[in-house]
Amino acid sequence: MSYVVAPPAITTLAVAGQDGLFPVRRVYCVGRNYAAHAREMGFDPDREPPFFFAKPADAVVPVASGQTLELPYPSETSNYHYEIELVAAIGKGGRNISAEHALEHVWGYAVGLDMTRRDLQIKMREMGRPWEIGKAFDQSAPIGPLHRAEDIGHPQHAAIWLQVEGVDQQRSDIDQLIWSVPETIAWLSRYFELQPGDLIMTGTPEGVGAVRAGELLTGGIDGLGQLSVRVV
Amino acid sequence: MSYVVAPPAITTLAVAGQDGLFPVRRVYCVGRNYAAHAREMGFDPDREPPFFFAKPADAVVPVASGQTLELPYPSETSNYHYEIELVAAIGKGGRNISAEHALEHVWGYAVGLDMTRRDLQIKMREMGRPWEIGKAFDQSAPIGPLHRAEDIGHPQHAAIWLQVEGVDQQRSDIDQLIWSVPETIAWLSRYFELQPGDLIMTGTPEGVGAVRAGELLTGGIDGLGQLSVRVV
Repeated sequence: MSYVVAPPAITTLAVAGQDGLFPVRRVYCVGRNYAAHAREMGFDPDREPPFFFAKPADAVVPVASGQTLELPYPSETSNYHYEIELVAAIGKGGRNISAEHALEHVWGYAVGLDMTRRDLQIKMREMGRPWEIGKAFDQSAPIGPLHRAEDIGHPQHAAIWLQVEGVDQQRSDIDQLIWSVPETIAWLSRYFELQPGDLIMTGTPEGVGAVRAGELLTGGIDGLGQLSVRVV
Repeated sequence: MSYVVAPPAITTLAVAGQDGLFPVRRVYCVGRNYAAHAREMGFDPDREPPFFFAKPADAVVPVASGQTLELPYPSETSNYHYEIELVAAIGKGGRNISAEHALEHVWGYAVGLDMTRRDLQIKMREMGRPWEIGKAFDQSAPIGPLHRAEDIGHPQHAAIWLQVEGVDQQRSDIDQLIWSVPETIAWLSRYFELQPGDLIMTGTPEGVGAVRAGELLTGGIDGLGQLSVRVV
Protein backbone atom coordinates (compact mmCIF):
# COMPACT_ATOMS: atom_id res chain seq x y z
CA MET A 1 0.00 0.00 0.00
CA SER A 2 1.19 3.51 -0.75
CA TYR A 3 0.12 6.87 0.63
CA VAL A 4 -0.45 10.25 -0.98
CA VAL A 5 1.42 13.27 0.34
CA ALA A 6 -1.12 15.88 1.35
CA PRO A 7 0.08 19.48 1.24
CA PRO A 8 -1.75 21.90 3.50
CA ALA A 9 -4.73 23.58 1.90
CA ILE A 10 -4.08 27.17 0.93
CA THR A 11 -5.61 29.35 3.59
CA THR A 12 -8.14 31.80 2.30
CA LEU A 13 -9.17 34.99 3.93
CA ALA A 14 -12.74 33.74 4.25
CA VAL A 15 -12.06 33.48 7.95
CA ALA A 16 -9.85 36.54 8.40
CA GLY A 17 -11.17 38.73 11.10
CA GLN A 18 -13.33 35.91 12.38
CA ASP A 19 -12.69 35.61 16.10
CA GLY A 20 -10.17 38.40 15.60
CA LEU A 21 -7.75 36.08 13.80
CA PHE A 22 -5.73 36.52 10.61
CA PRO A 23 -4.63 33.08 9.34
CA VAL A 24 -1.07 33.14 8.03
CA ARG A 25 -0.19 31.34 4.80
CA ARG A 26 3.40 32.33 4.04
CA VAL A 27 5.98 34.74 5.42
CA TYR A 28 8.13 36.58 2.90
CA CYS A 29 10.99 38.82 4.03
CA VAL A 30 12.87 41.58 2.22
CA GLY A 31 16.63 41.77 2.68
CA ARG A 32 18.63 44.96 3.32
CA ASN A 33 15.80 47.41 2.76
CA TYR A 34 17.16 50.34 4.79
CA ALA A 35 20.34 51.98 3.50
CA ALA A 36 21.95 52.39 6.93
CA HIS A 37 21.33 48.72 7.72
CA ALA A 38 22.77 47.65 4.36
CA ARG A 39 25.90 49.64 5.22
CA GLU A 40 26.22 48.16 8.71
CA MET A 41 26.07 44.70 7.11
CA GLY A 42 28.94 45.67 4.82
CA PHE A 43 26.98 46.45 1.67
CA ASP A 44 26.58 49.52 -0.44
CA PRO A 45 22.88 50.29 -0.67
CA ASP A 46 21.69 50.73 -4.17
CA ARG A 47 18.59 50.47 -6.27
CA GLU A 48 19.25 46.96 -7.48
CA PRO A 49 16.18 44.76 -7.45
CA PRO A 50 15.25 43.79 -3.91
CA PHE A 51 15.72 40.21 -2.76
CA PHE A 52 13.53 37.93 -0.71
CA PHE A 53 13.71 35.05 1.69
CA ALA A 54 11.01 33.19 3.57
CA LYS A 55 10.16 31.79 6.97
CA PRO A 56 7.82 28.87 7.63
CA ALA A 57 4.33 30.11 8.43
CA ASP A 58 4.44 28.23 11.73
CA ALA A 59 7.56 30.18 12.75
CA VAL A 60 5.17 33.07 13.44
CA VAL A 61 4.60 33.67 17.13
CA PRO A 62 1.64 35.93 17.90
CA VAL A 63 2.47 38.48 20.57
CA ALA A 64 -0.56 40.00 22.21
CA SER A 65 -0.64 43.67 22.99
CA GLY A 66 0.84 44.42 26.38
CA GLN A 67 2.03 40.85 26.91
CA THR A 68 5.68 39.86 27.29
CA LEU A 69 6.32 36.67 25.41
CA GLU A 70 9.10 34.26 26.29
CA LEU A 71 11.15 33.24 23.30
CA PRO A 72 13.65 30.39 23.51
CA TYR A 73 17.25 31.12 22.54
CA PRO A 74 17.66 28.93 19.46
CA SER A 75 20.26 26.20 19.05
CA GLU A 76 23.47 26.34 17.00
CA THR A 77 24.02 30.07 17.24
CA SER A 78 26.25 32.28 19.32
CA ASN A 79 24.98 35.47 17.71
CA TYR A 80 21.20 35.66 17.99
CA HIS A 81 19.99 38.96 16.52
CA TYR A 82 16.86 41.09 16.73
CA GLU A 83 15.53 42.94 13.68
CA ILE A 84 12.48 45.15 14.17
CA GLU A 85 10.29 45.37 11.05
CA LEU A 86 7.09 46.72 9.59
CA VAL A 87 4.91 43.78 8.55
CA ALA A 88 2.34 44.10 5.75
CA ALA A 89 -0.44 41.50 5.62
CA ILE A 90 -1.91 40.57 2.24
CA GLY A 91 -5.68 40.43 1.95
CA LYS A 92 -6.08 40.07 -1.80
CA GLY A 93 -3.77 37.86 -3.82
CA GLY A 94 -2.31 38.36 -7.26
CA ARG A 95 0.62 38.03 -9.63
CA ASN A 96 2.49 40.84 -11.32
CA ILE A 97 0.72 43.39 -9.19
CA SER A 98 1.59 46.94 -10.19
CA ALA A 99 3.01 49.28 -7.57
CA GLU A 100 0.16 51.66 -8.39
CA HIS A 101 -2.45 49.13 -7.29
CA ALA A 102 -0.40 47.28 -4.66
CA LEU A 103 -1.95 48.92 -1.61
CA GLU A 104 -5.35 47.53 -2.60
CA HIS A 105 -3.88 44.12 -1.76
CA VAL A 106 -2.83 45.05 1.78
CA TRP A 107 -5.18 43.97 4.55
CA GLY A 108 -3.24 45.52 7.41
CA TYR A 109 0.01 46.16 9.24
CA ALA A 110 1.80 44.97 12.34
CA VAL A 111 5.09 45.23 14.18
CA GLY A 112 7.29 42.16 13.81
CA LEU A 113 10.69 40.79 14.66
CA ASP A 114 12.83 38.96 12.11
CA MET A 115 14.90 36.95 14.59
CA THR A 116 18.14 35.82 13.00
CA ARG A 117 20.94 33.36 13.75
CA ARG A 118 23.41 35.92 12.39
CA ASP A 119 26.52 33.76 12.52
CA LEU A 120 24.83 31.04 10.47
CA GLN A 121 23.28 33.54 8.06
CA ILE A 122 26.62 35.23 7.38
CA LYS A 123 28.41 31.90 6.99
CA MET A 124 25.83 30.74 4.45
CA ARG A 125 25.89 34.07 2.62
CA GLU A 126 29.66 34.04 2.32
CA MET A 127 29.58 30.48 0.99
CA GLY A 128 26.82 31.34 -1.50
CA ARG A 129 24.55 28.91 0.31
CA PRO A 130 20.88 29.23 1.20
CA TRP A 131 19.96 31.29 4.24
CA GLU A 132 17.30 29.09 5.83
CA ILE A 133 19.39 27.89 8.78
CA GLY A 134 20.01 31.51 9.71
CA LYS A 135 16.50 32.80 9.12
CA ALA A 136 13.83 30.09 8.92
CA PHE A 137 14.01 28.49 12.34
CA ASP A 138 11.17 27.91 14.79
CA GLN A 139 9.72 30.97 16.53
CA SER A 140 11.81 33.31 14.39
CA ALA A 141 8.89 35.64 13.61
CA PRO A 142 7.17 37.17 16.66
CA ILE A 143 4.41 39.41 15.32
CA GLY A 144 2.29 41.89 17.26
CA PRO A 145 -1.38 42.79 16.78
CA LEU A 146 -2.44 43.37 13.20
CA HIS A 147 -4.26 46.60 12.39
CA ARG A 148 -6.56 46.80 9.41
CA ALA A 149 -5.62 49.29 6.70
CA GLU A 150 -9.28 50.29 6.47
CA ASP A 151 -9.01 51.47 10.08
CA ILE A 152 -5.54 53.02 10.16
CA GLY A 153 -4.70 53.71 6.52
CA HIS A 154 -1.33 52.91 4.96
CA PRO A 155 1.46 54.29 7.14
CA GLN A 156 4.24 55.97 5.17
CA HIS A 157 6.04 57.92 7.88
CA ALA A 158 6.32 56.47 11.37
CA ALA A 159 9.10 55.98 13.89
CA ILE A 160 10.33 52.39 14.14
CA TRP A 161 12.43 51.46 17.15
CA LEU A 162 13.74 48.64 19.29
CA GLN A 163 15.16 48.59 22.80
CA VAL A 164 17.13 45.91 24.62
CA GLU A 165 16.56 46.15 28.36
CA GLY A 166 15.10 49.61 27.88
CA VAL A 167 18.06 51.00 25.90
CA ASP A 168 17.59 52.18 22.31
CA GLN A 169 19.32 49.96 19.75
CA GLN A 170 17.33 50.61 16.57
CA ARG A 171 15.57 53.87 15.72
CA SER A 172 14.57 55.01 12.28
CA ASP A 173 11.46 55.81 10.28
CA ILE A 174 9.62 53.61 7.84
CA ASP A 175 9.97 56.41 5.28
CA GLN A 176 13.59 55.22 5.04
CA LEU A 177 12.58 51.97 3.32
CA ILE A 178 14.55 51.66 0.09
CA TRP A 179 11.68 49.72 -1.47
CA SER A 180 8.32 50.97 -0.27
CA VAL A 181 5.51 48.55 0.53
CA PRO A 182 3.92 49.02 -2.93
CA GLU A 183 7.25 48.56 -4.71
CA THR A 184 8.02 45.48 -2.62
CA ILE A 185 4.65 43.93 -3.48
CA ALA A 186 5.22 44.67 -7.15
CA TRP A 187 8.62 42.93 -7.15
CA LEU A 188 7.61 40.02 -4.94
CA SER A 189 4.50 39.25 -6.99
CA ARG A 190 6.65 38.79 -10.09
CA TYR A 191 8.25 35.73 -8.52
CA PHE A 192 5.48 34.38 -6.30
CA GLU A 193 1.72 34.52 -6.63
CA LEU A 194 0.63 36.28 -3.48
CA GLN A 195 -2.36 34.91 -1.61
CA PRO A 196 -4.55 36.17 1.21
CA GLY A 197 -2.79 35.36 4.46
CA ASP A 198 0.72 36.15 3.24
CA LEU A 199 2.84 38.35 5.48
CA ILE A 200 5.65 40.53 4.16
CA MET A 201 8.37 41.50 6.61
CA THR A 202 9.71 44.64 4.99
CA GLY A 203 13.26 44.77 6.37
CA THR A 204 14.97 46.25 9.38
CA PRO A 205 16.73 49.57 9.98
CA GLU A 206 20.26 49.95 11.33
CA GLY A 207 21.27 48.99 14.85
CA VAL A 208 20.86 45.23 14.71
CA GLY A 209 22.73 43.31 17.34
CA ALA A 210 22.81 40.32 19.61
CA VAL A 211 20.39 39.53 22.36
CA ARG A 212 21.28 37.18 25.19
CA ALA A 213 19.23 34.88 27.35
CA GLY A 214 17.38 36.83 30.01
CA GLU A 215 17.20 40.07 28.03
CA LEU A 216 13.99 41.90 27.18
CA LEU A 217 13.35 43.18 23.66
CA THR A 218 10.73 45.86 23.18
CA GLY A 219 10.02 47.36 19.82
CA GLY A 220 7.37 49.37 18.09
CA ILE A 221 6.15 51.47 15.21
CA ASP A 222 4.18 54.63 15.86
CA GLY A 223 0.51 53.95 15.20
CA LEU A 224 0.92 50.16 15.31
CA GLY A 225 1.76 49.72 18.98
CA GLN A 226 4.65 47.76 20.36
CA LEU A 227 5.63 44.23 21.17
CA SER A 228 7.74 42.80 23.92
CA VAL A 229 9.58 39.49 24.11
CA ARG A 230 12.01 38.12 26.67
CA VAL A 231 14.62 35.69 25.46
CA VAL A 232 15.00 32.76 27.80
CA MET B 1 -9.76 46.83 16.79
CA SER B 2 -6.70 44.72 16.15
CA TYR B 3 -6.32 41.13 15.00
CA VAL B 4 -4.03 38.32 16.06
CA VAL B 5 -1.89 36.60 13.43
CA ALA B 6 -2.70 32.91 13.52
CA PRO B 7 0.07 30.60 12.34
CA PRO B 8 -1.04 27.21 11.03
CA ALA B 9 -1.23 24.51 13.66
CA ILE B 10 1.64 22.06 13.48
CA THR B 11 0.39 18.98 11.70
CA THR B 12 0.74 15.82 13.69
CA LEU B 13 0.95 12.35 12.33
CA ALA B 14 -2.20 11.38 14.21
CA VAL B 15 -3.93 11.32 10.86
CA ALA B 16 -1.11 9.89 8.75
CA GLY B 17 -2.24 6.90 6.84
CA GLN B 18 -5.86 7.87 7.45
CA ASP B 19 -7.58 7.84 4.08
CA GLY B 20 -4.18 6.98 2.65
CA LEU B 21 -2.87 10.49 3.26
CA PHE B 22 0.38 11.76 4.74
CA PRO B 23 -0.05 15.41 5.79
CA VAL B 24 3.01 17.51 4.96
CA ARG B 25 4.36 20.03 7.48
CA ARG B 26 7.64 21.27 5.99
CA VAL B 27 9.86 20.42 3.05
CA TYR B 28 13.60 20.48 3.65
CA CYS B 29 16.05 19.97 0.78
CA VAL B 30 19.72 19.01 0.79
CA GLY B 31 22.04 20.80 -1.64
CA ARG B 32 24.71 19.12 -3.79
CA ASN B 33 24.46 15.67 -2.24
CA TYR B 34 25.84 13.63 -5.16
CA ALA B 35 29.48 14.20 -6.09
CA ALA B 36 28.90 14.12 -9.86
CA HIS B 37 26.10 16.68 -9.55
CA ALA B 38 28.26 18.93 -7.37
CA ARG B 39 30.91 18.81 -10.10
CA GLU B 40 28.45 19.58 -12.91
CA MET B 41 27.36 22.64 -10.88
CA GLY B 42 30.98 23.79 -10.74
CA PHE B 43 31.81 22.64 -7.20
CA ASP B 44 34.35 20.26 -5.80
CA PRO B 45 32.46 17.69 -3.76
CA ASP B 46 33.83 17.35 -0.30
CA ARG B 47 32.81 16.27 3.14
CA GLU B 48 31.99 19.74 4.40
CA PRO B 49 28.79 19.88 6.42
CA PRO B 50 25.75 19.54 4.19
CA PHE B 51 23.52 22.55 3.61
CA PHE B 52 19.78 22.90 3.48
CA PHE B 53 17.05 24.95 1.91
CA ALA B 54 13.28 24.72 2.13
CA LYS B 55 10.17 24.83 0.03
CA PRO B 56 6.72 25.87 1.27
CA ALA B 57 4.67 22.83 2.26
CA ASP B 58 1.98 23.89 -0.18
CA ALA B 59 4.50 23.76 -3.05
CA VAL B 60 4.11 19.98 -2.83
CA VAL B 61 2.09 18.53 -5.69
CA PRO B 62 0.95 14.95 -5.12
CA VAL B 63 1.43 12.80 -8.22
CA ALA B 64 -0.61 9.63 -8.20
CA SER B 65 0.89 6.41 -9.44
CA GLY B 66 0.44 5.98 -13.17
CA GLN B 67 -0.99 9.48 -13.61
CA THR B 68 0.65 12.19 -15.71
CA LEU B 69 0.38 15.51 -13.96
CA GLU B 70 0.42 18.84 -15.78
CA LEU B 71 2.82 21.32 -14.24
CA PRO B 72 2.81 24.97 -15.27
CA TYR B 73 6.05 26.47 -16.52
CA PRO B 74 6.78 29.05 -13.82
CA SER B 75 7.25 32.75 -14.41
CA GLU B 76 10.50 34.71 -14.45
CA THR B 77 12.73 31.88 -15.61
CA SER B 78 14.26 30.89 -18.91
CA ASN B 79 16.01 27.85 -17.45
CA TYR B 80 13.49 25.63 -15.68
CA HIS B 81 15.27 22.49 -14.39
CA TYR B 82 14.26 19.03 -13.24
CA GLU B 83 16.04 17.31 -10.34
CA ILE B 84 14.98 13.77 -9.49
CA GLU B 85 15.33 12.96 -5.77
CA LEU B 86 14.77 10.38 -3.07
CA VAL B 87 12.33 11.84 -0.53
CA ALA B 88 12.33 10.68 3.10
CA ALA B 89 9.19 11.36 5.16
CA ILE B 90 9.56 11.92 8.90
CA GLY B 91 7.17 10.06 11.20
CA LYS B 92 8.75 10.81 14.57
CA GLY B 93 10.14 14.23 15.40
CA GLY B 94 13.20 15.21 17.34
CA ARG B 95 16.21 17.47 17.77
CA ASN B 96 19.84 16.45 17.67
CA ILE B 97 18.92 13.01 16.43
CA SER B 98 21.93 10.74 16.17
CA ALA B 99 22.70 9.10 12.84
CA GLU B 100 22.57 5.75 14.64
CA HIS B 101 18.92 6.25 15.58
CA ALA B 102 17.84 8.40 12.63
CA LEU B 103 16.07 5.69 10.66
CA GLU B 104 13.65 5.19 13.56
CA HIS B 105 12.33 8.65 12.66
CA VAL B 106 11.61 7.83 9.00
CA TRP B 107 8.00 6.96 8.16
CA GLY B 108 8.55 6.23 4.50
CA TYR B 109 10.03 7.12 1.13
CA ALA B 110 8.91 8.52 -2.19
CA VAL B 111 10.21 9.74 -5.52
CA GLY B 112 10.19 13.52 -5.86
CA LEU B 113 11.20 16.34 -8.17
CA ASP B 114 12.98 19.43 -6.89
CA MET B 115 11.93 21.76 -9.70
CA THR B 116 14.28 24.73 -9.94
CA ARG B 117 14.38 28.12 -11.64
CA ARG B 118 18.08 27.56 -12.30
CA ASP B 119 18.89 30.99 -13.70
CA LEU B 120 17.44 32.69 -10.63
CA GLN B 121 19.05 30.22 -8.23
CA ILE B 122 22.51 30.73 -9.77
CA LYS B 123 22.11 34.50 -9.82
CA MET B 124 21.16 34.53 -6.14
CA ARG B 125 23.97 32.12 -5.24
CA GLU B 126 26.57 34.22 -7.02
CA MET B 127 25.32 37.35 -5.26
CA GLY B 128 25.32 35.61 -1.85
CA ARG B 129 21.57 36.09 -1.72
CA PRO B 130 18.87 33.68 -0.52
CA TRP B 131 17.74 30.96 -2.91
CA GLU B 132 13.98 31.08 -2.40
CA ILE B 133 13.09 32.69 -5.74
CA GLY B 134 14.95 29.86 -7.47
CA LYS B 135 13.68 27.02 -5.33
CA ALA B 136 10.61 27.86 -3.25
CA PHE B 137 8.00 28.68 -5.88
CA ASP B 138 4.53 27.20 -6.28
CA GLN B 139 4.30 23.59 -7.47
CA SER B 140 8.06 23.16 -7.25
CA ALA B 141 7.84 19.81 -5.44
CA PRO B 142 5.90 17.10 -7.29
CA ILE B 143 6.01 13.99 -5.07
CA GLY B 144 4.94 10.47 -5.98
CA PRO B 145 3.28 7.84 -3.78
CA LEU B 146 4.82 7.41 -0.35
CA HIS B 147 5.80 3.91 0.74
CA ARG B 148 6.01 3.04 4.42
CA ALA B 149 9.41 1.96 5.69
CA GLU B 150 7.69 -0.78 7.67
CA ASP B 151 6.55 -2.25 4.35
CA ILE B 152 9.61 -1.70 2.15
CA GLY B 153 12.48 -1.17 4.59
CA HIS B 154 15.08 1.59 4.20
CA PRO B 155 16.48 1.56 0.66
CA GLN B 156 20.25 2.01 0.49
CA HIS B 157 21.01 0.89 -3.04
CA ALA B 158 18.55 1.61 -5.82
CA ALA B 159 18.73 3.05 -9.30
CA ILE B 160 17.46 6.65 -9.57
CA TRP B 161 16.72 8.01 -13.02
CA LEU B 162 14.91 10.67 -14.99
CA GLN B 163 13.92 10.86 -18.63
CA VAL B 164 12.78 13.81 -20.74
CA GLU B 165 10.53 12.67 -23.57
CA GLY B 166 11.70 9.09 -22.97
CA VAL B 167 15.43 9.87 -23.19
CA ASP B 168 17.69 9.27 -20.17
CA GLN B 169 18.99 12.49 -18.59
CA GLN B 170 19.75 11.45 -15.02
CA ARG B 171 20.81 7.95 -13.94
CA SER B 172 22.63 7.08 -10.77
CA ASP B 173 22.11 5.09 -7.57
CA ILE B 174 21.04 6.36 -4.19
CA ASP B 175 24.16 4.68 -2.75
CA GLN B 176 25.99 7.64 -4.30
CA LEU B 177 24.51 10.08 -1.77
CA ILE B 178 27.36 11.96 -0.10
CA TRP B 179 25.29 12.32 3.06
CA SER B 180 23.14 9.26 3.66
CA VAL B 181 19.58 9.63 4.93
CA PRO B 182 20.65 8.99 8.56
CA GLU B 183 23.55 11.46 8.32
CA THR B 184 21.26 14.05 6.72
CA ILE B 185 18.69 13.68 9.50
CA ALA B 186 21.45 14.02 12.11
CA TRP B 187 22.72 17.28 10.57
CA LEU B 188 19.31 18.75 9.80
CA SER B 189 17.97 18.09 13.30
CA ARG B 190 20.79 20.16 14.80
CA TYR B 191 19.34 23.26 13.16
CA PHE B 192 15.62 22.50 13.05
CA GLU B 193 13.43 20.42 15.32
CA LEU B 194 11.97 17.83 13.00
CA GLN B 195 8.29 17.03 13.31
CA PRO B 196 6.03 14.33 11.93
CA GLY B 197 5.00 15.38 8.45
CA ASP B 198 8.36 16.81 7.43
CA LEU B 199 9.72 15.74 4.06
CA ILE B 200 13.41 15.68 3.26
CA MET B 201 14.39 15.90 -0.40
CA THR B 202 17.83 14.31 -0.33
CA GLY B 203 19.47 15.86 -3.39
CA THR B 204 19.76 15.04 -7.06
CA PRO B 205 22.34 13.12 -9.09
CA GLU B 206 24.12 14.45 -12.17
CA GLY B 207 22.38 15.18 -15.44
CA VAL B 208 20.17 18.10 -14.46
CA GLY B 209 18.93 20.23 -17.28
CA ALA B 210 16.17 22.35 -18.69
CA VAL B 211 12.68 21.22 -19.51
CA ARG B 212 10.49 23.16 -21.93
CA ALA B 213 6.75 23.57 -22.20
CA GLY B 214 5.17 20.49 -23.76
CA GLU B 215 7.86 18.07 -22.58
CA LEU B 216 7.21 14.99 -20.46
CA LEU B 217 9.37 14.21 -17.43
CA THR B 218 9.37 10.66 -16.10
CA GLY B 219 11.53 9.64 -13.19
CA GLY B 220 11.80 6.87 -10.69
CA ILE B 221 13.68 4.99 -8.04
CA ASP B 222 13.73 1.20 -8.07
CA GLY B 223 11.35 -0.07 -5.42
CA LEU B 224 9.53 3.25 -5.09
CA GLY B 225 7.87 3.41 -8.48
CA GLN B 226 7.96 6.33 -10.84
CA LEU B 227 6.25 9.64 -11.42
CA SER B 228 5.38 11.47 -14.56
CA VAL B 229 4.71 15.17 -15.15
CA ARG B 230 4.17 17.14 -18.32
CA VAL B 231 5.22 20.77 -18.32
CA VAL B 232 2.63 22.97 -19.95
